[in-house]
Amino acid sequence: MTVNVGVIGVGMIGKDHIRRLTTVLAGAGVTAVTDVNLDEAKKVAEGLPNANVHSTGEELVNDDSVDAVLVCSWGPTHEEYVLAAVAAGKPVFCEKPLATTQEACLRIIEAEVAFGRRLVQVGYMRRYDSYYRALKSVVDSGDIGAPLLMHCTHRNPSVPGHYTREMAITDTAVHEIDMVRWMFGEEIVATRVLKPRKNSLGGELEDPLLLIFEMSSGALIDVETSVNIRYGYDIRGEVVGETGTAALGEFSPVTVRTNNRFAGRVPEDWRERFISAYDVEFQEWIDGVRDGGTYGPSSWDGYAAAVVSDAAVEALRSGNRSTVELAEKPALYA
Amino acid sequence: MTVNVGVIGVGMIGKDHIRRLTTVLAGAGVTAVTDVNLDEAKKVAEGLPNANVHSTGEELVNDDSVDAVLVCSWGPTHEEYVLAAVAAGKPVFCEKPLATTQEACLRIIEAEVAFGRRLVQVGYMRRYDSYYRALKSVVDSGDIGAPLLMHCTHRNPSVPGHYTREMAITDTAVHEIDMVRWMFGEEIVATRVLKPRKNSLGGELEDPLLLIFEMSSGALIDVETSVNIRYGYDIRGEVVGETGTAALGEFSPVTVRTNNRFAGRVPEDWRERFISAYDVEFQEWIDGVRDGGTYGPSSWDGYAAAVVSDAAVEALRSGNRSTVELAEKPALYA
Amino acid sequence: MTVNVGVIGVGMIGKDHIRRLTTVLAGAGVTAVTDVNLDEAKKVAEGLPNANVHSTGEELVNDDSVDAVLVCSWGPTHEEYVLAAVAAGKPVFCEKPLATTQEACLRIIEAEVAFGRRLVQVGYMRRYDSYYRALKSVVDSGDIGAPLLMHCTHRNPSVPGHYTREMAITDTAVHEIDMVRWMFGEEIVATRVLKPRKNSLGGELEDPLLLIFEMSSGALIDVETSVNIRYGYDIRGEVVGETGTAALGEFSPVTVRTNNRFAGRVPEDWRERFISAYDVEFQEWIDGVRDGGTYGPSSWDGYAAAVVSDAAVEALRSGNRSTVELAEKPALYA
Amino acid sequence: MTVNVGVIGVGMIGKDHIRRLTTVLAGAGVTAVTDVNLDEAKKVAEGLPNANVHSTGEELVNDDSVDAVLVCSWGPTHEEYVLAAVAAGKPVFCEKPLATTQEACLRIIEAEVAFGRRLVQVGYMRRYDSYYRALKSVVDSGDIGAPLLMHCTHRNPSVPGHYTREMAITDTAVHEIDMVRWMFGEEIVATRVLKPRKNSLGGELEDPLLLIFEMSSGALIDVETSVNIRYGYDIRGEVVGETGTAALGEFSPVTVRTNNRFAGRVPEDWRERFISAYDVEFQEWIDGVRDGGTYGPSSWDGYAAAVVSDAAVEALRSGNRSTVELAEKPALYA
Repeated sequence: MTVNVGVIGVGMIGKDHIRRLTTVLAGAGVTAVTDVNLDEAKKVAEGLPNANVHSTGEELVNDDSVDAVLVCSWGPTHEEYVLAAVAAGKPVFCEKPLATTQEACLRIIEAEVAFGRRLVQVGYMRRYDSYYRALKSVVDSGDIGAPLLMHCTHRNPSVPGHYTREMAITDTAVHEIDMVRWMFGEEIVATRVLKPRKNSLGGELEDPLLLIFEMSSGALIDVETSVNIRYGYDIRGEVVGETGTAALGEFSPVTVRTNNRFAGRVPEDWRERFISAYDVEFQEWIDGVRDGGTYGPSSWDGYAAAVVSDAAVEALRSGNRSTVELAEKPALYA
Repeated sequence: MTVNVGVIGVGMIGKDHIRRLTTVLAGAGVTAVTDVNLDEAKKVAEGLPNANVHSTGEELVNDDSVDAVLVCSWGPTHEEYVLAAVAAGKPVFCEKPLATTQEACLRIIEAEVAFGRRLVQVGYMRRYDSYYRALKSVVDSGDIGAPLLMHCTHRNPSVPGHYTREMAITDTAVHEIDMVRWMFGEEIVATRVLKPRKNSLGGELEDPLLLIFEMSSGALIDVETSVNIRYGYDIRGEVVGETGTAALGEFSPVTVRTNNRFAGRVPEDWRERFISAYDVEFQEWIDGVRDGGTYGPSSWDGYAAAVVSDAAVEALRSGNRSTVELAEKPALYA
Repeated sequence: MTVNVGVIGVGMIGKDHIRRLTTVLAGAGVTAVTDVNLDEAKKVAEGLPNANVHSTGEELVNDDSVDAVLVCSWGPTHEEYVLAAVAAGKPVFCEKPLATTQEACLRIIEAEVAFGRRLVQVGYMRRYDSYYRALKSVVDSGDIGAPLLMHCTHRNPSVPGHYTREMAITDTAVHEIDMVRWMFGEEIVATRVLKPRKNSLGGELEDPLLLIFEMSSGALIDVETSVNIRYGYDIRGEVVGETGTAALGEFSPVTVRTNNRFAGRVPEDWRERFISAYDVEFQEWIDGVRDGGTYGPSSWDGYAAAVVSDAAVEALRSGNRSTVELAEKPALYA
Repeated sequence: MTVNVGVIGVGMIGKDHIRRLTTVLAGAGVTAVTDVNLDEAKKVAEGLPNANVHSTGEELVNDDSVDAVLVCSWGPTHEEYVLAAVAAGKPVFCEKPLATTQEACLRIIEAEVAFGRRLVQVGYMRRYDSYYRALKSVVDSGDIGAPLLMHCTHRNPSVPGHYTREMAITDTAVHEIDMVRWMFGEEIVATRVLKPRKNSLGGELEDPLLLIFEMSSGALIDVETSVNIRYGYDIRGEVVGETGTAALGEFSPVTVRTNNRFAGRVPEDWRERFISAYDVEFQEWIDGVRDGGTYGPSSWDGYAAAVVSDAAVEALRSGNRSTVELAEKPALYA
């Protein structure tokens, strides 16, 4: 059985997921597309064997050929389309963020709880990366004892001019926010943001930042975000346990010895680093939809990420420790 | 368009490729199966949405629903099925070896040349491994100068009791034979086999071996095969150029610090190490078949591997240097 | 010319330095010893070719055979002996701490400034470690741009029962305190101490800790101290610059491949890790004394370490950010 | 007690050892020097506190102030000076080679055996390198099972114009020859030399070479010598055992992340790589002389290296396997 997907938003990310669904993965097809730019949607549809074009996301959601919905549109529109999919009882994959406010996330949770079954998956792909999975598997094995700390770095070679210091939290470190909740299997309860000496290559941008997250067990996470560090896209993480540590391995297929150096490669960008994770993420989503389940990051995860991000932004602005206040967690997400 | 594949041989490898074609890759289906054990073929077909069962490979090849043929049967039967596919003008993927004798390989080449277009691909999957591809890309870039040497190791934790010293060449090092021809872009012209002290864990088996290959440019390749080394499946390679070297990176997603050690992981077996390479190999084959081409290891590569293997077996038995005498290479494989 | 050293304190560390001065390094001898346990001092002297035993440190300092003084006694006695050496105009090497209070450190500085020439060196040996020196050389080269952050870990396999949480600062992280002042060439201006989830192996001990130091340039340092982590003595550090990073290499002479692992060695204790640094530290001190100079960590460095330690202890107790208030720096230490 | 050394030959190496004996190590002094260039010897003596200048090596050997002799003169003179020292019953350290012919080596052995006690040590310093020692310690521990193979590389950035292909054996790989005899605790019994494609940077020089050594146990050693490889001085080695392998670690104190690379350092030359090994070698020699013993590489080791080198040169010239024929080993060297 082929899972037929309707895609809302055919910008860069939407196009890439359509490529993935139609030329990389097994068991999926794309039977409907829409975009705020309807001409673009039509152009994309022409490249597909059999895809309807819709003028609105709601129309697409209700297209009978659509088994599941993929939301890749502009963030502020996510809530509306996810709610429409839930209303139609169709599985929906929503690129991050789930919605742009905590309240909107809660409305989605409420709708999904009312429906009575999980339909929503949020696009946090690190959980599907083979390196993070291997790391979690060591942590879960108990080989390093109870986890007490995690040191993370999230480095980008450069960011565009409109990038703000808040985006280092909401766009960049939000991946670590979801990852550590998953890695440690617990919630973040408070956060601080420290401001190191500024990187002059970023002009006025307050970069790097050093984020501190406190987990409910007391475990501490530190995350360095450096978004103009030029040398590469470098995602690292080390979990410190009671009797040992476990760290992400180097992501380098080849070691070159030249010029008094032996050198491995640091990826150029997130595509090089995480392209396989996206493939796995979507294959598992497609397989889950086909088999009647949705198992990835949930609405609750999307909501928690939003609340932690908001707290971190507040901590960045105030310079103080900021606590994370979550609503009660519905049993659906236990 | 879906490429419909007929599978000859549904043993362990055949089953794994069927899983790959139907649940991992895009654009493929399995519409026919056969096996020397017909009951097994029937059982496999039952698990597929729409697959015919045939009592012979020839019948399967000529099934109209079959666009392309996959040969995973017992080695001695390969020639017959590949020739049948060529006769039918259908693309055929043949697991290694292409055939069990040089003469059989030449008959396949002759048939393919007569047909006038490449139809045959042989299952040398290292060319599709991201690590080897990155290595070749450094070598081809000229960053280490002209390649002069390559050091390889091919280590297995253990082999079954029926494994013979010749199999260290024909089953094990044959992967390096194909790989170095591709890596260096030239033929192997001579070979020697040296016999180190015997590993007592292998009983009477002459293991490890140290194989030496001379390339047409004069470059030298050494390959250590150790097939009872217990600690893991460890495939390594370093190309030595005029001004530097390039080596396969470590295949380890996580580094663990415990017990006065920092340790990465060595794969347990070839599945762990090369499963992605198989996926890429088959996706590229499927895409090629769909687009009308076949671009992977050719009949010529299968033939050359057979001739080099034979020379190496002779060198192993005689203790002498053994030259590799290849037929003239048809223009089809230029 | 041989530099004749008088050693105050012949406990474990004193004995080790006597071994170093007499059997490892060039140009040094030990001509006088004393200890609070006079019998022990006599026993040590018997093992030396020509050493006087003194009943007090002051007497030893004024022994004409003594060119330079080495203070390895109990911390609270350091001030008295260092001041005696300065009064006698003799170079003095004082194991850390320089003194147990800021005020005592300032009295030493005052005496040395009054004398008009540097005589005092404090035993911070990381500045002599080849790994830290290589790291500093990369930072100073500008290859990674201006340094903005440093991530450090200081891990011990275990600590004795009397070890307190304050000692994680005053005994353990004090090495990082001196090291980062030297690495960055600037003072620490403030500090915080965060408390991760407690390691249950340490009983009631608050361990690990996460220390944050702010440098005068705004650069931020984080230091994880984990003193019961069992797996080894693991000292790491990565300086993050504007365009790259530089980290201490692994201190492992051999890589072993067994049991599905490739593994390097983590040192067992500080001896294994830093024994060479101690040798270099003392050879450079001896050479400096012979040539009329003292160039290592100064009284000022000892004082600054004391002030920062005090601030960090306060931060640990209060949970707040604590600023570092240094006296004005005399020109002697420019 | 100070060991007073007389140094024969004060060229680059002799000067470096004098520096080592007088300013780095404990317990040694230099009380006599000589050189074929007597003016140079006088100049060197002026820089020493108390050194006699002699016009011949024999005179120096018999200087009463000389406890032990260090021979750093031109290779062809080694035999004469070593024999003189043995005749005088004085310990003698002879830089490699022990002598320039097998026969000369045997004459030294004969003299030493007649004297009845070991006096001669040959300058093979790899046995004193902490990395090789750690490697041997793993091999000896049995952790990787019985050793069956060793892969070595000996790479130099460049060699002077007068360097010949034979020198790749007699000057370069001779270090591996001594090292593997020590590492495996057995003799080399045969050798082959294979000639890879030539490095064009070396002009007419046949470089690299691939040397194969067979040990008496059957273990096989391969040694790549690449003497114009530009990128650095890179000494590597991996011992392959029955159940695992052990390899020299990377000799790099710092890892730098810049330009899409994480990179460690490859030493520039043998000084950077082995300077510590020379220090240890001489400290142990001095300590041994003082305590009445000589424990390092013996006359027998110097002789065996000469015989293996000769066999390898013959193998290089003939293209054939060449056996190593050693005299009977006197009990003195058991």
